[in-house]
Amino acid sequence: MSLLVVGSVALDSIHTPFGETADALGGSANFFAVAASLLAPVQVVGVVGNDYPFHELEKLAARGIDWSGVERVEGESFRWRGKYSYDLQSRETLETRLGVFADFKPKLPEAFRNPQYLFLGNIHPELQLEVLQSVPRPKLVVADTMNYWINGTKPQLMELLKHVDLLMVNDSEARELSGDWNVHRAGKWILAHGPKMVVIKQGEYGAMLITPGKTFYVPAFPLEEVFDPTGAGDAFAGGFMGWVARTGNVSEMNLRRAMVYGSVMGSVAVQAFSIKGFEGVDLAEIDRRAEAFRDLTHIPLAEPLS
Amino acid sequence: MSLLVVGSVALDSIHTPFGETADALGGSANFFAVAASLLAPVQVVGVVGNDYPFHELEKLAARGIDWSGVERVEGESFRWRGKYSYDLQSRETLETRLGVFADFKPKLPEAFRNPQYLFLGNIHPELQLEVLQSVPRPKLVVADTMNYWINGTKPQLMELLKHVDLLMVNDSEARELSGDWNVHRAGKWILAHGPKMVVIKQGEYGAMLITPGKTFYVPAFPLEEVFDPTGAGDAFAGGFMGWVARTGNVSEMNLRRAMVYGSVMGSVAVQAFSIKGFEGVDLAEIDRRAEAFRDLTHIPLAEPLS
Repeated sequence: MSLLVVGSVALDSIHTPFGETADALGGSANFFAVAASLLAPVQVVGVVGNDYPFHELEKLAARGIDWSGVERVEGESFRWRGKYSYDLQSRETLETRLGVFADFKPKLPEAFRNPQYLFLGNIHPELQLEVLQSVPRPKLVVADTMNYWINGTKPQLMELLKHVDLLMVNDSEARELSGDWNVHRAGKWILAHGPKMVVIKQGEYGAMLITPGKTFYVPAFPLEEVFDPTGAGDAFAGGFMGWVARTGNVSEMNLRRAMVYGSVMGSVAVQAFSIKGFEGVDLAEIDRRAEAFRDLTHIPLAEPLS
Repeated sequence: MSLLVVGSVALDSIHTPFGETADALGGSANFFAVAASLLAPVQVVGVVGNDYPFHELEKLAARGIDWSGVERVEGESFRWRGKYSYDLQSRETLETRLGVFADFKPKLPEAFRNPQYLFLGNIHPELQLEVLQSVPRPKLVVADTMNYWINGTKPQLMELLKHVDLLMVNDSEARELSGDWNVHRAGKWILAHGPKMVVIKQGEYGAMLITPGKTFYVPAFPLEEVFDPTGAGDAFAGGFMGWVARTGNVSEMNLRRAMVYGSVMGSVAVQAFSIKGFEGVDLAEIDRRAEAFRDLTHIPLAEPLS
């Protein structure tokens, strides 16, 4: 049930109303892997500079994360610096230094070349497609993207869409990609351009899985304490793919369960800086939160009044 | 199962990207009543000026709306004029003319003085409390409010809260009232100040019912066409209270069903200007949309994988 993610491995410096952190483990592949590994082993493809605290990643290997696809090259690691507003509803990017990530060319070690579940994190869509075409067709291919690629490399992104099963983006990305502010129409537009399914993430409002003729909503896990939203969307993706890899099942009903595990992982990510939210969390806690969704959204429409 | 609403009966002039309307039927009590009346008869207390097209209201009486508590006085009716942004995500108030609503003192006709279900629409909290104290204790008392009263009449509002069963507000109102940007903590704060339950409405993101130790989420009904968001929150309240009045049941499980009917009515309200969205809608259509929520949020956590 091998699960492979290609994405960024970065160092984040973040300012929130509750504190700040510098050069902490971050990047989409990092959050994805830490979340997914609670459910299934995960292989990571990425790149870091020789300034990266690689021993920190290696400590995480015991969780079932195979970092052997993360290339270490001469130069600076990808760094992002941002600041959140007092209510965490918006953030400002203070600095982005791509470093070695600017010339990233994913290289898959031999043991990574037959993934059953593939997550193409948000990198250049040509690179996403190259990775996909370098392996036998996985059982499920999910891609992320971002406004930068939507604006700068739309033709390549549209080509990629023809080859993936599911596009997983947030609502502003779905709107920008489709040119339609209505998220439901935006989802339908995406379905008309390749993917069989779309996941639209809406942060604290949850996420929806759109398939032809059907929409499924999962709320966010209700949290009274949110510390740092960074990485929530990537952790969601990790939970989603981790559940699919764990169960080996890509039916629509099982993808609904995957949505719940995605939402749970997002809730873990936001409870601390960097990936620290995952430190004290085990599968039992994850399952407990997933179970809580049953009641959280349970509509007793068909039951007798009582 | 008598249901009473006290609120504004107004004339709205609205500009959306899709068109505009002038002096159309509006106001919280109007949207509430039209929505609620699909489920149960409703009595309305309000005030209009002698310029109000009262015959338009009277045409709606056949739906089961008793307008005999709407006083007609010399002067201008309450008018609101607003303009929505291209994506309907924000709106600007261009003009508010309170007219006769400024001196509104609710007067309950004899036949209105024993409501079983009472909705205190957003008027001065002292007036809300006066209405409540002028009737025998209803089975369920729900109050709305708005930023204007939160800022200007907080002590009176806090007094009101001690006497109502449920406060139904949108997320920005919950945040402003509690002084806490986290909606879950805001809900808890409200529970600590009187009401046994809180409904926090989040527009296109749905709504949540918060009770001690429990949160229930209902999404918005997915709509590819949204025409005019005005009145959606009031229609939600009408659907919620209409369902409670229809079933005569205030159990928490039945209030979850009421949340679904609230969300359905909100979806009807936004599909046309003013109350026109309700014109072609019957109970069968309402039930059909309510049924759709079952699948929309169905998490098959406990079922076998397939």
